[in-house]
Amino acid sequence: MSGEDLIARRRRLLGRHVTTFYEEPFAPVRGEGVWLYDREGRPHLDCYNNVPHVGHCHPRVVDAIARQTATLNVHTRYVHDLILDYGERLTARLGGGLSAMIMVCTGSEANDVALRMAEAVTGNRGFIGTDNTYHGNTSAVSQLNARKVPVGGFGDHVRKVPAPDNLAPIGGSPEKQAEAFCAEVETAIADLQASPHGFAGLILCPYFANEGFPTLPRGFLDRTVEAVHLAGGLVIADEVQPGFGRLGSHFWGHERLGFTPDIVTMGKPMANGYPAAAVVTRPEILEAFQEQFRYFNTFGGNPVAAAAALATLQVIEDEGLQENARDVGGYLLARLCEIGARHEVVADVRGAGMFLGLELMEDDRPATASCARLVNEMRRRGVLVHSAGRHDHILKIRPPLVFSRENADLLADTLEAALGEAL
Amino acid sequence: MSGEDLIARRRRLLGRHVTTFYEEPFAPVRGEGVWLYDREGRPHLDCYNNVPHVGHCHPRVVDAIARQTATLNVHTRYVHDLILDYGERLTARLGGGLSAMIMVCTGSEANDVALRMAEAVTGNRGFIGTDNTYHGNTSAVSQLNARKVPVGGFGDHVRKVPAPDNLAPIGGSPEKQAEAFCAEVETAIADLQASPHGFAGLILCPYFANEGFPTLPRGFLDRTVEAVHLAGGLVIADEVQPGFGRLGSHFWGHERLGFTPDIVTMGKPMANGYPAAAVVTRPEILEAFQEQFRYFNTFGGNPVAAAAALATLQVIEDEGLQENARDVGGYLLARLCEIGARHEVVADVRGAGMFLGLELMEDDRPATASCARLVNEMRRRGVLVHSAGRHDHILKIRPPLVFSRENADLLADTLEAALGEAL
Repeated sequence: MSGEDLIARRRRLLGRHVTTFYEEPFAPVRGEGVWLYDREGRPHLDCYNNVPHVGHCHPRVVDAIARQTATLNVHTRYVHDLILDYGERLTARLGGGLSAMIMVCTGSEANDVALRMAEAVTGNRGFIGTDNTYHGNTSAVSQLNARKVPVGGFGDHVRKVPAPDNLAPIGGSPEKQAEAFCAEVETAIADLQASPHGFAGLILCPYFANEGFPTLPRGFLDRTVEAVHLAGGLVIADEVQPGFGRLGSHFWGHERLGFTPDIVTMGKPMANGYPAAAVVTRPEILEAFQEQFRYFNTFGGNPVAAAAALATLQVIEDEGLQENARDVGGYLLARLCEIGARHEVVADVRGAGMFLGLELMEDDRPATASCARLVNEMRRRGVLVHSAGRHDHILKIRPPLVFSRENADLLADTLEAALGEAL
Repeated sequence: MSGEDLIARRRRLLGRHVTTFYEEPFAPVRGEGVWLYDREGRPHLDCYNNVPHVGHCHPRVVDAIARQTATLNVHTRYVHDLILDYGERLTARLGGGLSAMIMVCTGSEANDVALRMAEAVTGNRGFIGTDNTYHGNTSAVSQLNARKVPVGGFGDHVRKVPAPDNLAPIGGSPEKQAEAFCAEVETAIADLQASPHGFAGLILCPYFANEGFPTLPRGFLDRTVEAVHLAGGLVIADEVQPGFGRLGSHFWGHERLGFTPDIVTMGKPMANGYPAAAVVTRPEILEAFQEQFRYFNTFGGNPVAAAAALATLQVIEDEGLQENARDVGGYLLARLCEIGARHEVVADVRGAGMFLGLELMEDDRPATASCARLVNEMRRRGVLVHSAGRHDHILKIRPPLVFSRENADLLADTLEAALGEAL
């Protein structure tokens, strides 16, 4: 079966609008660590995928999934110790009384539950999010997303505030940005309070990943969190992207910014690819939710999901992957800064740990087309990256956490060559 | 760790309202075929779980999951043949031009997508469902559910029509029930058309599983489907419970009733416990959805989910499990009818294939408490069943499809003894 046949079958079955990465679509058949191999056995360095968090097909996670799948897989209306072992270990990594958990299957489901938790606690339905974000794809959660207007239009219960930015900081300067962000949130709160919806909460990615992860000082959200709480609302931190040690300096994005959310959601990297996600909150919030909604998730937190997530957490700890993200990420950031300094198109180089980016600008405009050319050129050279940001003009680098200095050098060298070739 | 400690830990972590089956909660540690074993090695006959569709820990499914997890697990923005192999085989089992598919992770996500497909096609947001149903637990889908009023109340865009019933048929008689059901749907359509929401579609389980699976003649929904189409709406068949051969006579619930839906959703049994679900529809409906919503599901249809679902489908076919459901189900139904005839509390015995039930009534009232006592007594005797229906007064029997005549006899004998003991 040739690659072309696969594309034709794919369009026929999955629809002609199905998203496919790269001009020359990539068809991996095997994965190991930071490598993905195509049919011809050619290795591609994975600098993009955050789902295989501890590396593609990590033997300990594979083994945990295989063994538990062969032993028992049932729903959580029966009693099993693995979800408890996992949940206790997971919540021990969170402060602020965040000791209660619901396991679900996807980050979308986690955020869908989190919104309802805030509704249950406050009795209100109005939410504030940032204006270029993505929190998932259920009907309710997609109301918070930036792109594609749903049937019936966006709901009147959502207010979108401008996300912080590096090159065009809201408030006019990096110093004033925290204050300006808080002021925007306060205006949105007042607006919702004056509406029939009332104010339920603020949801954000504490790394502002989809907005292009602007560099922000610790404490950036302190005043905002205070304002939300003063208004009786809850703060939901969507840790799907920054969580589980990716940022190197801290295990969670909110920890890095230095605030304590009321609800934390997590997904993608949690079980290294097994469909697992979770909502962690304070017991009284979980209780309010359970009293208001009769929630049960058939696959969520089943013994295999718990085994996979537990193995992933153990590998992060045993292999020191947060520390590796910090060290190799720091090394890679320095190399990217050197490269950026030599290429005019690179307007900014930033990020933390294993989540880095190069913002590309041409004539003071986002270099969207150049970024796409660069992404495709690197794919041809066997290095997988992609784009992010408001205008898809930021080269996004987000590899599995087992990335080494040698991998970082290969990425940097390929980037340098591709920049010369593509731009 | 004793069972009691597990319960305490469970309440602390998962909340004190977490649902736990049985007065004496069951804590299985191993599963095989139709058997679940507790810590002491005591076997329990599983007559309830529809997720382990081809049997707990079926070696072929376990092997498919283990091998693919060790080989490659990535999202569908890369190209892979397994989702195509599976989707082509799955859609070949559906008529009516239903040849396009989206894979997601849960039945809830599938129905959440299906609703938006109908919105995208019609431009409307009004839905009709039945009045004692369950289609899942996202914010949007839970609007269709019968129990627990969400924050802000039920949306004004949903109309609930009375589900068909065996003992109290709408319209007054079984003969008039189809007509009466259609008339209710037509009234709801007119009501929605006169509202700002308009009419988008009708969603139902074609076995009315949560309503207690009333016995209905083939063609029961013909006029209703015609009325929906005449009004420009779509019919969504939620096959999460009846699908994949469980009903014995047919592979799908809608096939058994003899109608062709516009959208089919599936979940629980699809991959024998691996979190996988799907929406299958006509290509033009998928296209309208993709044009309206930018939908992508990170874990949905990944190579492991596809491998697990493909193995499950192959086992159903190779082991003749639909035929087994028909044969053993027929045998079991006959035995249950004999038992029912000897016990006054049993007002009706019904069902198809491996989805059977006993409706319990006392003094012309639903015997809810007696049904609960019976369920708990059978659990003490090592046979796992549960309840269903509007008043939780129907003993629900829904075992893995590998159930044998010997298993059926053990279930029937235990039921007979438990009826004597508990009631």
